[in-house]
Amino acid sequence: MHGKIRLVEDDASDMSANSDDAPATARTRSGGRAGRKAARAAEAPPRAPYIQRRIATFEVLSAEGLELIEAHADEILEETGMDFRGDAEILSIFRAAGADVKADRVRFEPGMCRTLITATAPHEVTQHARNPANSVVIGGANMVLAPGWGPPFIHNLDEGRRYATYDDFCRLIKIHQMIPDYHHSGGVVVEPVDLPANKRHLDMLYAHFRWSDRALFGALIGEERAQDSVNMAKIVFGEEFVGKNCCLYAVSNTNAPLVMDHNMSGSLKVYARNNQVVAVTPWTLTGAMSPCTPAGTLAQVLAEALAGLALVQLINPGAPCMMGTFASTMSMQSGAPTFGTPESGLIVLAAGQLARRLGVPFHTVGSLSASKLPDGQAMAEGMFGLTMAVLAGANFINHAGGWLEGGLVHGFEKSILDADSCGKLRVFAQGLELSDNAFAMDAIREVGPGAHYLGSAHTQKNFATAMYRAPSADNNSYEQWLAEGSLDAARRANRTWKGLLADYQDPGLDPAIDEALKAYVARRKAAEPDRNYY
Amino acid sequence: MHGKIRLVEDDASDMSANSDDAPATARTRSGGRAGRKAARAAEAPPRAPYIQRRIATFEVLSAEGLELIEAHADEILEETGMDFRGDAEILSIFRAAGADVKADRVRFEPGMCRTLITATAPHEVTQHARNPANSVVIGGANMVLAPGWGPPFIHNLDEGRRYATYDDFCRLIKIHQMIPDYHHSGGVVVEPVDLPANKRHLDMLYAHFRWSDRALFGALIGEERAQDSVNMAKIVFGEEFVGKNCCLYAVSNTNAPLVMDHNMSGSLKVYARNNQVVAVTPWTLTGAMSPCTPAGTLAQVLAEALAGLALVQLINPGAPCMMGTFASTMSMQSGAPTFGTPESGLIVLAAGQLARRLGVPFHTVGSLSASKLPDGQAMAEGMFGLTMAVLAGANFINHAGGWLEGGLVHGFEKSILDADSCGKLRVFAQGLELSDNAFAMDAIREVGPGAHYLGSAHTQKNFATAMYRAPSADNNSYEQWLAEGSLDAARRANRTWKGLLADYQDPGLDPAIDEALKAYVARRKAAEPDRNYY
Repeated sequence: MHGKIRLVEDDASDMSANSDDAPATARTRSGGRAGRKAARAAEAPPRAPYIQRRIATFEVLSAEGLELIEAHADEILEETGMDFRGDAEILSIFRAAGADVKADRVRFEPGMCRTLITATAPHEVTQHARNPANSVVIGGANMVLAPGWGPPFIHNLDEGRRYATYDDFCRLIKIHQMIPDYHHSGGVVVEPVDLPANKRHLDMLYAHFRWSDRALFGALIGEERAQDSVNMAKIVFGEEFVGKNCCLYAVSNTNAPLVMDHNMSGSLKVYARNNQVVAVTPWTLTGAMSPCTPAGTLAQVLAEALAGLALVQLINPGAPCMMGTFASTMSMQSGAPTFGTPESGLIVLAAGQLARRLGVPFHTVGSLSASKLPDGQAMAEGMFGLTMAVLAGANFINHAGGWLEGGLVHGFEKSILDADSCGKLRVFAQGLELSDNAFAMDAIREVGPGAHYLGSAHTQKNFATAMYRAPSADNNSYEQWLAEGSLDAARRANRTWKGLLADYQDPGLDPAIDEALKAYVARRKAAEPDRNYY
Repeated sequence: MHGKIRLVEDDASDMSANSDDAPATARTRSGGRAGRKAARAAEAPPRAPYIQRRIATFEVLSAEGLELIEAHADEILEETGMDFRGDAEILSIFRAAGADVKADRVRFEPGMCRTLITATAPHEVTQHARNPANSVVIGGANMVLAPGWGPPFIHNLDEGRRYATYDDFCRLIKIHQMIPDYHHSGGVVVEPVDLPANKRHLDMLYAHFRWSDRALFGALIGEERAQDSVNMAKIVFGEEFVGKNCCLYAVSNTNAPLVMDHNMSGSLKVYARNNQVVAVTPWTLTGAMSPCTPAGTLAQVLAEALAGLALVQLINPGAPCMMGTFASTMSMQSGAPTFGTPESGLIVLAAGQLARRLGVPFHTVGSLSASKLPDGQAMAEGMFGLTMAVLAGANFINHAGGWLEGGLVHGFEKSILDADSCGKLRVFAQGLELSDNAFAMDAIREVGPGAHYLGSAHTQKNFATAMYRAPSADNNSYEQWLAEGSLDAARRANRTWKGLLADYQDPGLDPAIDEALKAYVARRKAAEPDRNYY
């Protein structure tokens, strides 16, 4: 038993099979897929399917500062207003609610949007996974971490950087499914550019439902794709269940500054009407799409979010919705987008406070980086951004892993290294335990001055669960590291994702559901010709 | 003028000469040492010599939690007590103050140490640099960041890992002197193992005084070396000035658990008597030198710090002193020390709170890592640790850069990459500006929905100072990055430190002082034979 506990520590679970830190005796015992599988089955303790934080949020602004941002957001909505382009229905919804609508431009009296939101928007929503053990509660002290979203390229140490394919898409879903510190299967983990642009959402939804049993995103762009997502969710969860429960996660990005186009409002309408959660997330490149100062960016972000969230509540009062922010910065010298910057950290902390004052869960982004490689820049930027999202009290962190090159690339090794950071922040978010066992006064008395605690009764009792160790980190001696091949973090991560893929455990899917999904996809694909644009 | 501002951004100053982000026109203008020097002289704005934070600290524990730790620390000091070994004078000092002294063991009534400390310890101290513009105020909302301390090895991409020499020592001092985001010259930046162990402190002190004009550490181990440090400071600052002002920074590590040996108490006595600041810093490897649970570690750390700080105040009431913590963790599976862990983050946050309740400035550590290379592990661990130290409200962060391999190695490239993180946290610590300019309402009105801010009057006015960009980060397009050699962060940092060394600006030293320092070193070296042990 002792030997087994030494093999796989609590925090490492699925990822420690390739660990350089495991004692040699343990490694020899764990040879091959069967050995690793057995080790996991025997020793991995049950893990909460999301983080339930016990530490406070970091309040970067005082109440007065937050009120100032809110007043400026109201001023923006009243004076400048926001354009809702190409969607007459939405303009009439706003007009009927009493907003000032002229052409595409909608202006709001101060406080109008906030009143609409706080009257009916729920504080929390459960997003169901097809495996109920993986359902996530979004809101309150809960944090759900999802992998990276959107890159048209992949990078790994074997293949370098190239366009992503549907095979990459499925491989990443399988790798992520094996990593407990991602809580959600995500959405467009990469753009499978080998599939026609107008149909690939069907294949992506199918792949998530088939290869993962976690919660997932619906398609974000366009009314039709959102409806496909809802229809496929109904096949998996049942028609009645979907109407009454949240089974899809959706993000509605504004086209900052102060525009929402029909692609986004179209999908927003479908999800809102079907009671699926919508995170209204202004995406700003500070300095280009919002002012080059964080306060101005925050005022604009809040204005856009207020308008979008009010829209959700006007469409379907009580529909679950979230305030989101994705405030990237840019180098004012070169115009290049920058990530993991201090300004983006400050903005996400303040945005979290604004969301809590609005009473809706908070969505933001995590381990972003502009780096081309899973190197020091990538991990410093990613770690800082993810830490800020956690301190901001984010209830959902998208892109918690994998992002390289400002989101153009999903890095296989980066996804593994970021998962370590997710695990670190999971433990951090538990805060400090202050029990009698944690204070260990018996041990301090027993050991006394100048001795060590390694053999103390307290250490024997607690060592199996004490201290997080990042699975991909190498903490060994230089000599051992040399003997094991002098691998840097990226090369160790390369071994890890290959091991996870080799060990992938298919969660299975009811054959009748599988057939029905395939039939839906085939029918929808046959309905129109392939196109390489949306 | 506009072109010049584009060349070197505010935040980059000394380090941007090698930036990949600088426009091509600017790069061609800045050719060579003279060009870079001219650019710096013309454009680098004055920079505060340390960080004056405007954000709050992160309170990880409630007042009740902190009181519980304090009660347990008192219990440890009363029941178990602490050993002060090999220093009869200290035992008699404690005995005279009313402590219970039996052999080397000293026990304290609950509250005794705290009362002694709060009665006379100052809340803040100015450490003078020989260049008054570089003097640092330690305490309150100020944060002083120092480079790495102690490694017997160096690592850089050209030479790999090898034993450190005095030449490395001097090169690192010169590199750090050129980096504005380090505020302090540090101490044993590396162990110059080519010099005799019993005399190298003299060469190290000389090198700091000669090649840097920033504040520095005194020697930490042993009464004699501490006295040498004070004597050399008197040569530089004048005898009378040193007696009345803090010119040396000292750390007094305990030998956890619950021991202070005569090497540490010896130097502590010298610095306390001479009014030089002492950071009493229990060094614990949680799980070996303290319980494997953070709460027990905190209680022990506080107990050790209380005893050491009380000693400083008994020796010289009113002498400047700081509470320190250096709580590393270890893998309970392999016994390997681990860094940048969630537990170490939680401990430093709580320790910062405990120091503030004690009313003394807080010392801790920054960018630590167990990695062998300046890779993703190194930077994720370093970034997390440094961020936690800043959120903890540390007034002095030692090892803010350069550490690899758990402190066995000073990495030249790591030191450059960590300096980026220091700069990032400097900007972060300024918090959010909420001025009319920051809210940019004119710009939002001017730009309106769907346009961009790049050409707005607000952007034109603010772009030169908006947005921090890490000098070593590459934010360019993939194509440009490829064209520039596909360098990862470490290889870019390699270029940077070589550029800084090539451009090193000697701050100069009064020839009379220089001669007197050399004469002191020569005299002291002649007084005893070389030894390769302390």
